[in-house]
Amino acid sequence: MKVSFIGLGVMGFPMAGHLQKSGLDVTVYNRTTEKARLWASQYGGNVGVTVAECAKGADVVISCVGNDDDVRSVITSNDGAISVMKPGAILVDHTTTSAKLANELLEACQAAGVAFMDAPVSGGQAGAENGVLTIMCGGDKALFDMLQPIFTAYGKSSVLMGEVGQGQRAKMVNQICIAGALNGLSEGLLLAEKAGLDIPTLVDCLKNGAAGSWQMENRATTMAQRSFDFGFAIDWMIKDLGFCLDEAQTQGITLPLTSKVVDQYKELSEQGLGRMDTSVIIEAVEKEAN
Amino acid sequence: MKVSFIGLGVMGFPMAGHLQKSGLDVTVYNRTTEKARLWASQYGGNVGVTVAECAKGADVVISCVGNDDDVRSVITSNDGAISVMKPGAILVDHTTTSAKLANELLEACQAAGVAFMDAPVSGGQAGAENGVLTIMCGGDKALFDMLQPIFTAYGKSSVLMGEVGQGQRAKMVNQICIAGALNGLSEGLLLAEKAGLDIPTLVDCLKNGAAGSWQMENRATTMAQRSFDFGFAIDWMIKDLGFCLDEAQTQGITLPLTSKVVDQYKELSEQGLGRMDTSVIIEAVEKEAN
Repeated sequence: MKVSFIGLGVMGFPMAGHLQKSGLDVTVYNRTTEKARLWASQYGGNVGVTVAECAKGADVVISCVGNDDDVRSVITSNDGAISVMKPGAILVDHTTTSAKLANELLEACQAAGVAFMDAPVSGGQAGAENGVLTIMCGGDKALFDMLQPIFTAYGKSSVLMGEVGQGQRAKMVNQICIAGALNGLSEGLLLAEKAGLDIPTLVDCLKNGAAGSWQMENRATTMAQRSFDFGFAIDWMIKDLGFCLDEAQTQGITLPLTSKVVDQYKELSEQGLGRMDTSVIIEAVEKEAN
Repeated sequence: MKVSFIGLGVMGFPMAGHLQKSGLDVTVYNRTTEKARLWASQYGGNVGVTVAECAKGADVVISCVGNDDDVRSVITSNDGAISVMKPGAILVDHTTTSAKLANELLEACQAAGVAFMDAPVSGGQAGAENGVLTIMCGGDKALFDMLQPIFTAYGKSSVLMGEVGQGQRAKMVNQICIAGALNGLSEGLLLAEKAGLDIPTLVDCLKNGAAGSWQMENRATTMAQRSFDFGFAIDWMIKDLGFCLDEAQTQGITLPLTSKVVDQYKELSEQGLGRMDTSVIIEAVEKEAN
């Protein structure tokens, strides 16, 4: 199987590496070609200097880029992947995008006789490097089954959530739950700090009970240290939660907590903290609390 | 060791049972004596018809009742436990109370030559029945060590959080984190429902990642079914979060999310839902979302 992988960021670089190591014939494309050459020197595999060169003749084209417009630029633009993909090929988009874009891609794929699956991932950079991502999929069951050799190369689990767009909507729910957990954890930690509780001891005590969360287990201690220079950047989270609010509007509901979190992240980003991990929200909660 | 256990509610009843089964000599007291007799018929052990009868001569007196005033009534009132406890005995309070009450109990104990530890628990009714509670302790290390035979009878872990009152403050942080996780989960589920995602599939997909929480794993599916007639009652949570807000005020901070959650629970309680599980908050979030 000939696979093209477009986008060698912190996620795509190791993901494409896992594919190549799994024995597939991988060709990569990256906006800056040096990075693609670095990838090839590390893993073997081929480099496409243009998207078209990368995607031409592929059985499966995979994209993992930044935002909706980045996807359009590499997939549906005049010189994008779809312009060269053969009928019967498959497009998989791992980018976290709007549900609207997923449907846009589906339409473009259908016009070209190409199959499509939206498949945003969670698990972050570490998950990509260790090949243990969770992949949230939208599209046909037969397609989902067919893609298992690819998904298992870098995923610990892939789940078919429904038709095209449902992978993106599942990812939205993921991000909303993170926002809520972090907000509660922030208020809890602020009270704990003021009360003089030892945070690592507290986390050990609470993490396996009803208050427990991935965020508590993995972020409480670094939050207490006000250490945020790692992890999932709030500028990406602002984008993702923006999709959530758009989707909520489409569905006719409001999400007050999520809306507030977006405002908090935007304010933090304006203060120059856009690359900090989402747990930096404790800074906004602290400002409001004092 | 002679142990007195005061308060045979959904928590105390099985906790005292575990103590008796562990080989300790247990005498119980309950406001309605029939329940104490039921306990004795189930586990063996002795019944005190009054608090004084129960607590007299005990090496350790344990209370697990409803609220601050309930504790005062059985412990520090004129005919409370302290009035009959011998010097050198130990008082352990498993009730979730204010930190102020913990200090009130400490003073009363010191005046009577009795040692004191505040030790609220988490893990709920199931945790009490299965003997796997988490016990958050405030007081002396030597006392904490001495109490291990008792705590291990019904706890899977006990953690010394600091001086008297710190057990209660750790429990407060626990409740705040639950409130935050549930609020985010509610917004996430509402969007998921509107978008037509299958909730059990979604939970399976998300629960082990960065969005994962005890609440997601144990409550998302019942929340989606709008099933709340079990678990931890919001009337208790209103009490507990009230302590959090009081403590925050004492510490000079505000907790906006926690405050909002208290208002939401109070409104639900006024609608007659006071006995429902804390996950019923999705009803309040849904009302606001629509």
